[in-house]
Parts: sequence; structure tokens; C-alpha cells
Amino acid sequence: MKIDGTPFRTVWVDDDGWSVRVIDQTRLPWSLDFLRLSTLDQAAHAIRAMQVRGAPLVGVAAAYGLALALRADPGTDAMERAAAQLAATRPTAINLRWALDRMLTRLRNTAAPARAAAAYAEAAAIADEDVARNAAIGQHGKPLIAAAAKPGVPVNILTHCNAGWLATVDWGTALAPIYAAHDAGIPVHVWVDETRPRNQGAALTAWELGKHGVPHTVISDNAGGHLMQHGRVDLAIVGTDRVTRTGDVANKIGTYLKALAAHDNGIPFWVASPSSTIDWTVSDGVAEIPIEERDAAEVTTVTGRGLDGKVATVRVTPTSSPAANPAFDVTPARLVTGFITERGRCDATAAGLAGMFPDLA
Amino acid sequence: MKIDGTPFRTVWVDDDGWSVRVIDQTRLPWSLDFLRLSTLDQAAHAIRAMQVRGAPLVGVAAAYGLALALRADPGTDAMERAAAQLAATRPTAINLRWALDRMLTRLRNTAAPARAAAAYAEAAAIADEDVARNAAIGQHGKPLIAAAAKPGVPVNILTHCNAGWLATVDWGTALAPIYAAHDAGIPVHVWVDETRPRNQGAALTAWELGKHGVPHTVISDNAGGHLMQHGRVDLAIVGTDRVTRTGDVANKIGTYLKALAAHDNGIPFWVASPSSTIDWTVSDGVAEIPIEERDAAEVTTVTGRGLDGKVATVRVTPTSSPAANPAFDVTPARLVTGFITERGRCDATAAGLAGMFPDLA
Repeated sequence: MKIDGTPFRTVWVDDDGWSVRVIDQTRLPWSLDFLRLSTLDQAAHAIRAMQVRGAPLVGVAAAYGLALALRADPGTDAMERAAAQLAATRPTAINLRWALDRMLTRLRNTAAPARAAAAYAEAAAIADEDVARNAAIGQHGKPLIAAAAKPGVPVNILTHCNAGWLATVDWGTALAPIYAAHDAGIPVHVWVDETRPRNQGAALTAWELGKHGVPHTVISDNAGGHLMQHGRVDLAIVGTDRVTRTGDVANKIGTYLKALAAHDNGIPFWVASPSSTIDWTVSDGVAEIPIEERDAAEVTTVTGRGLDGKVATVRVTPTSSPAANPAFDVTPARLVTGFITERGRCDATAAGLAGMFPDLA
Repeated sequence: MKIDGTPFRTVWVDDDGWSVRVIDQTRLPWSLDFLRLSTLDQAAHAIRAMQVRGAPLVGVAAAYGLALALRADPGTDAMERAAAQLAATRPTAINLRWALDRMLTRLRNTAAPARAAAAYAEAAAIADEDVARNAAIGQHGKPLIAAAAKPGVPVNILTHCNAGWLATVDWGTALAPIYAAHDAGIPVHVWVDETRPRNQGAALTAWELGKHGVPHTVISDNAGGHLMQHGRVDLAIVGTDRVTRTGDVANKIGTYLKALAAHDNGIPFWVASPSSTIDWTVSDGVAEIPIEERDAAEVTTVTGRGLDGKVATVRVTPTSSPAANPAFDVTPARLVTGFITERGRCDATAAGLAGMFPDLA
């Protein structure tokens, strides 16, 4: 998508032909900085520290991280260790494992001297396919927004966290239908959940929607239920980090609460999910999906820009009070209206998903 | 309650016999500052700016504000204007109107020269009754916590916003049963919702629980549903700003989402509500209770303490992104397990409330 008129992706190979460039998402919305990743350790750190984040993007970044590792040591042992190191950076999103499995399948059958080149090619293919999948999700989701349009008023869409182009290579998942509708001239307005503790909504979703010219309003995570009760939300669309084969949805902490509110108010709750987020091995999301517990400092502090223009971190809790920080929750399939995938829309059921992806299920 | 061993209330008449002292709650948890209110305008400002906040405390502060006004001008016109000014400071909490109505009922039948003294006496009576009511709520709520106790593990209680002693004159509403249980030796642990946008949980509830020695953990507002899904919450207790005669509950924005999650997981969701919070004139909370819309700056910024020890405000959204800030929501009675009142516990139904308060209904 464009930033001030210039097209960008979130990850690309630099002009040197091998180092990897990413947008440093911990610096947005205050400044647009580009990181150069030249080693496996740098790639793993960027994922763990959430300089790159978003389930689809994390998968692609890990693929390029493996390419960087193979450039340094193309041996099989080193390759397997590098993949394990990258897989351990974030436990919840399945795309990470999916991308690494795909890379290893290709590379285990490639002779060591050819592995680095093959890894770059495969990572590039994963990135390009991500863009195509997300564009298709946009087209399959657009009719949902068009159908909700009423004369003279925008369609009000609530989203949580950031599942926009910043969370992918381009287009986004949950925001792809919104960009597609907006670009098609359908008036839309997005309620952007701030998404504490890391504020991906306030910092990233608001930023990218603003840069694209999509009308939006930031709200506290607490506000969505009230807006739904008063008819101010027409539909909700969120992304996901892992979908079970039965349709349970792991996504950023707080998604479950919005799904409950949508269900209580008869509001459609859609999950945009490329096939790469479906974990066909898991049936019970609440019981089986590991939930990442992140640093309590993300809860006890907030980072923003001070009156002096400098980015600063302030503590919001008493120093003696501990905090807990589960990073994801699981929304049971019964609360999900359906999935928007690259092949079309389907029910949030085992039959719905298997019917859409008989080749994968 | 005690702060570092010294007993405090949130509001009292100063040693001069007429000016009013309050804890400045916008400065907590970073510093314990006391404001001196000597005029009607100062009292109205303190309420609107939430230097004093919490439905029961706002009622008492308004009562003292009227006393300050009458000290300056005891005439009937001035009195009615002062009451209207104070009533307009916050639209959602019913205690404000309840306290002012009670004051006016007493004062309209009092000759002008005697009004100021009568107002101070009535305000003091309201304050003392608040303390007694809340202490009684503590005793009536304590058995709920005792019944949830299991050997070797604390009872895990989730609360939202601050309905502790800081929200009242003393004891609190939702926290009164928790203090009563803790003081009785029942092991408790409180999950404290941070409560964006003003962070009353992170700033006030965590502070007052810590000062009293009650174990607690701060969580983002998004986390409660996940904790409930995993059996880590035994019951929820919240306060309220207004209860309809049918049992709908207006409380800090986000309460509705936690009530939905509690209901979805079979977890008791109790509302601590002194009789002064019941609005017997309202039947449909979602349709009829006015919801205060506060300054968007509360959403776009966060105040905390920087690494340099200074309290600072940082912006967390892009400057071009607007924000909305509804301050309360309404939880339908069907999601409320029951009320803890100063007379005992009752169902969240018209019959339950009328049966508990036949003299008021």
C-alpha cells in the first residue's frame, strides 16, 4: 500500500540483493524507520521484539530469517537449528510454523551449496503469495460491506488490533475488504480498538488507515460493546493468528470480548483468515492453542510521544503492583459468523473449512 | 481506610471548619495530594475534572459544593442555580442527583440565614451514611467470597474501574467485600482491569489494594475474558453509577464486556450497589440512561510517570486520527447475578430490588 503516495511492502530484499529490509513497527506512528536485517539473530530478535508482527508477516520474516541463516551456514544441522530458533520466537501464530515447514520441505531436498538461493526464492514466493491471498480476501470480503451500505451513511466496521497491510506483506487480512470497499467508492468508517497493551490499533491501524485516507475513529478497548448496543457498528472484521479445523479463532487478546458483544447484539463477526492461518491439527482452541505470555512491562507502561516531540515511556501502575500479560485469546467458533479466505467465505465450522479447503483439510 | 498506617477518608471539612479537603485522584498513584475546595466553582471543577470521582463520592462532593455555595449566598435563587451547576457536571451517575435532591429537600424548608450550617450538617450526614452503607455492603458481600474459598489457593476476584474506598467516602462498594474478606483472613487475589481510558484500575484500585496489602495483579481490559475461559476468575464484583428499577447497570465503559464473558463462562457477576445508586424512575438502562461522552484526549493520550520520575502525558495515536470516548456502558440485568446492597443481596430484577427496598421502590 502507499505511504504518502509511495508504494511499500512491509518486508523486501535490499538493493544489495541479500539483506532484508522491514518497517520497524515499534516506531510507528511516530516515525517511519526501516530496519536492515543481515543475520539470523537479528531476524529472530525483530520477530520477538515485535519490530515485525502480524501472523502473516511473521511467517514471511521467519522465511527470510532462514535465508539469512543459510547464507552464513548452509549445512543441515545449522538449518534445522535456525528453523527451531525462529519457530520459538512466538508460540501462538501458526503462520510462523507453516512458513518454516514449507521452507524446510523445499530446502531439505536441496543440496547445501544451493540452499541459500533456494531459500531466498521460496521466501519471495511466500511473500508474493501472501499479497495475492490478501488481495483475494479483500475481494471476497468487499460484498459484505457493500451489502451493509445504506444511503447517506458510511458502513461502520469495528476491528481489533492490526490486521492491516502492516500485519502482512501487503493489503492486510481484516483491512483488505475495507480497503477494497473504500477504493470502490463504498463509504466506510472504521472503529479502531486501541488494543492494549501494545496499542497496535491506536498506533498501527489508525496510522495505515489514515495514510490511505480511510475515515476512522480510535476507541478504547472497552467501548465496542456500548457502540454495538446502540446500533453504531454494522459489522466486525478481525484477523487471526491461528484457526482450528473446527473454526475456533486465536487472535489478539480482547477479540473474544468483542465477539461476545457482537453475538449479543446480532452483529456479524467475520474473521479474515488466509489458509496459512488454519491449523488442521487442532480441534479445541481454548484447550489446545498455546497462549503467549509477554512481559508485564507492556501492561505497566505505555509508550507515546511527549509534548516535547520525543517518544517516551511512562509507567501507569504503582511500582509495587504486578501485572499479567496474556497476548492472545481464543474466540469459540459459535461466536464467529464466518471466515473470509482467499477462496471465498465459509462457515466457522469443521465442515465449512473442509469444504473450502478439501486439498488441505 | 489507611494509607501507610494513617486512616483517611476521601473528603472531609478542614480544620478551619468550612473549607473542604479532598484527595486529588488525578495525581494518584504518583503522589498523594490534597485539594482545598473553598468555592462552588472549585467543587464543580473538581467533579468534572475527576479530581474527585466515583459515584458515591461525587454525590458527597456535590453536597459539600452546595454548602460552599450557600456560605457565599444563601438565597433561594443562588441555591437552585448552584444545585443545577453541580448536577450538570456529570450526567450518568445517579448519586449526584440523589445527593442534591436530598440537600434541596432539606434546605428549601430552611430559612436562608440557617442554610449554610444546615447544608454542612446534611453533607456530613450523607458522608457518614455512605461509610456505614459501604461497610454493610462489605459484610453482605463477604460470604460470597468465603463460599468460593478453596484450601490452599486464593479466591480470584475480577473488578473493573475503581469502586474502592477512593470512589466513596470510605470502604468502597465493589472492594468493600474484598477488604472484609481479606481482613477476616480469607485469602483473596484481585484481577484489576486497567480501565482505559482513564486507568482508574491501574492507577487507583491497584494503589489502594496495595496500600492495604491485598494481593492483586493488573491486567489490560482485554484480558479478563481469557482468564475466565481458563478458570482463573472465581467471581467478578463491580460498582455502578446507576441501577435501573429493573436491574440494568450503568458502570464504567467496558463493564458490559466483562459481564458477557462472565455469563459465557458461568462465573458469578455481582454488582455492589448502595440504594443511593438505584434510579427508580428508569426501566430500560440501554435506552434511557444518558452516557457521558468525555474528551477524546483521554483516549489519544496516556499519563504516567517517566523514567525521570516526572509525571508526563504522551500521545498514543497519530495526530490526524480522531477518537471517541463514551465513559459508561449499560449491562443488561440478565447478565447480572445479583446486587450486594447495604441491606443484603438481591436478584437483578424489578422484584428483587423492590423486595429489598419496599420503602424506596
